Amino acid sequence: MTAHPRMSLNQATIKHADLHEAVKITVAEGIPSIGLWREPVADVGLATASEVIKDAGLRVSSLCRGGFFTAEDPNQLRASIEDNRRAIDEAAVLAQAGAPGSAAVLVLVPGGLPQGSTDIAGARGRVRDAVAVLADDAAAAGVVLAIEPMHPIYAADRGVISTLGQALDIAEDFPAHVVGVVVDAFHVWWDPELLPQVARAGARGRIASYQVNDWITPLPADALLARGVMGDGHIDLPGLTAAVCGAGYRGDVEVEVFNKTLWDMPFADAAALVADRFSVIQLPHAR
Amino acid sequence: MTAHPRMSLNQATIKHADLHEAVKITVAEGIPSIGLWREPVADVGLATASEVIKDAGLRVSSLCRGGFFTAEDPNQLRASIEDNRRAIDEAAVLAQAGAPGSAAVLVLVPGGLPQGSTDIAGARGRVRDAVAVLADDAAAAGVVLAIEPMHPIYAADRGVISTLGQALDIAEDFPAHVVGVVVDAFHVWWDPELLPQVARAGARGRIASYQVNDWITPLPADALLARGVMGDGHIDLPGLTAAVCGAGYRGDVEVEVFNKTLWDMPFADAAALVADRFSVIQLPHAR
Repeated sequence: MTAHPRMSLNQATIKHADLHEAVKITVAEGIPSIGLWREPVADVGLATASEVIKDAGLRVSSLCRGGFFTAEDPNQLRASIEDNRRAIDEAAVLAQAGAPGSAAVLVLVPGGLPQGSTDIAGARGRVRDAVAVLADDAAAAGVVLAIEPMHPIYAADRGVISTLGQALDIAEDFPAHVVGVVVDAFHVWWDPELLPQVARAGARGRIASYQVNDWITPLPADALLARGVMGDGHIDLPGLTAAVCGAGYRGDVEVEVFNKTLWDMPFADAAALVADRFSVIQLPHAR
Repeated sequence: MTAHPRMSLNQATIKHADLHEAVKITVAEGIPSIGLWREPVADVGLATASEVIKDAGLRVSSLCRGGFFTAEDPNQLRASIEDNRRAIDEAAVLAQAGAPGSAAVLVLVPGGLPQGSTDIAGARGRVRDAVAVLADDAAAAGVVLAIEPMHPIYAADRGVISTLGQALDIAEDFPAHVVGVVVDAFHVWWDPELLPQVARAGARGRIASYQVNDWITPLPADALLARGVMGDGHIDLPGLTAAVCGAGYRGDVEVEVFNKTLWDMPFADAAALVADRFSVIQLPHAR
């Protein structure tokens, strides 16, 4: 099999595969790039993971995920910063192990409201502050911190940064090679400001990652597993892809689908399905 | 019992009560105002509903709901416009029957994407067009069309207008006494632009309705019944109330909670619970 030359398989799409299996299946499907997650990398160890990636000849498109910056408790916040420093180092090492064209990108999930808090403005401020604390570390490691604006369905419990515009407002306080944003179709498709904000992000070199999936209805009961495969839902993926590419994004495009049906399939079948459906987004082959 | 003098009980909060029961319970709880729904009004007939409201001495705070303007099929769209004209007339009659201080406000749910469509910009345009078609009817009837921006969780299947700013962009093409917006806490709380947009809405006399409830986690499995009672969730309701009142809103405040637990309670218990929790929002007694 040969997949699209700019496709990346995010490990979350075949969540229950370990790193060895995920790499094997990515290669077998002819997918040239992989989006890694810290937990399965840690399960085999960073050195082994790097070797496996290198031996497979895969590009690395991003590492998921750092972030979770919204704690009010200073000890918890400090622990989160330390953990993110480790994640920055991991992102650098893994991108180094990947084939040419790999991206040293650490995806940042902002974090939700602390238990019992209704102060979303305060939580948003702490995300900005944490990015400021980590920017020098990221710059030194050659890693881009990619702030992921999340669908407002997650504003309370996972990601208080709700729009691309809001993520860019933070990112633009830092150099473009240090802080960027993630454009994840599921999270941003509904935004009335989507197209101008994608253009803004691209014009300033801030699109660090483009992730595709779909918004399906009825919404599955578990909101965290609510994503659909490209073409199964309501998102104008060709339109979004054209906007992202038109804004100058030239990197790999990750398929990231959290979906129970997909997770229950044999890994190879799930990978083959999303590789086939990748054509829906109408991504040009050339970078 | 005596509830807050500006509280209104939206019928959806005790959805399974018919109009007679809903009015009886609202009066028994000392709640001075009621938010009506078209279906239970139709079940008893408009004339009877008007008499019941008048006899009870209740104010009417709004009629839910018109809208659903996004069909691509011209016949379906025409039927929707006709239905909305009937709804405008009903809103006028019911407000007339209500006690002084009643509001002739028709809440408009925008509608979702047509089956198989991914053209959200087109659907949004049709909402604007339908409001333009209905504006003269509303003006003639003395009814305010209140566009309800809906949480992006509903953008695909229920409401393509996703932010207060977007609703205001439409409303401001018409006089303020003809087209306004609904500020529903559940729908708008996450919006980074919430406070400036509330201020904008108020300054221009566009806040036609303020509805309260809460955003709870974990999100209930049925997204349509996902609302919580004030104080059970993550919304800064005192902050939102202060913004709405600070922007000049002087009307009744509706409790509108779609929640299965509440619906399964005896109606009087549900009404008593939300009347008690109304204090959470810290609404001034004076208009």
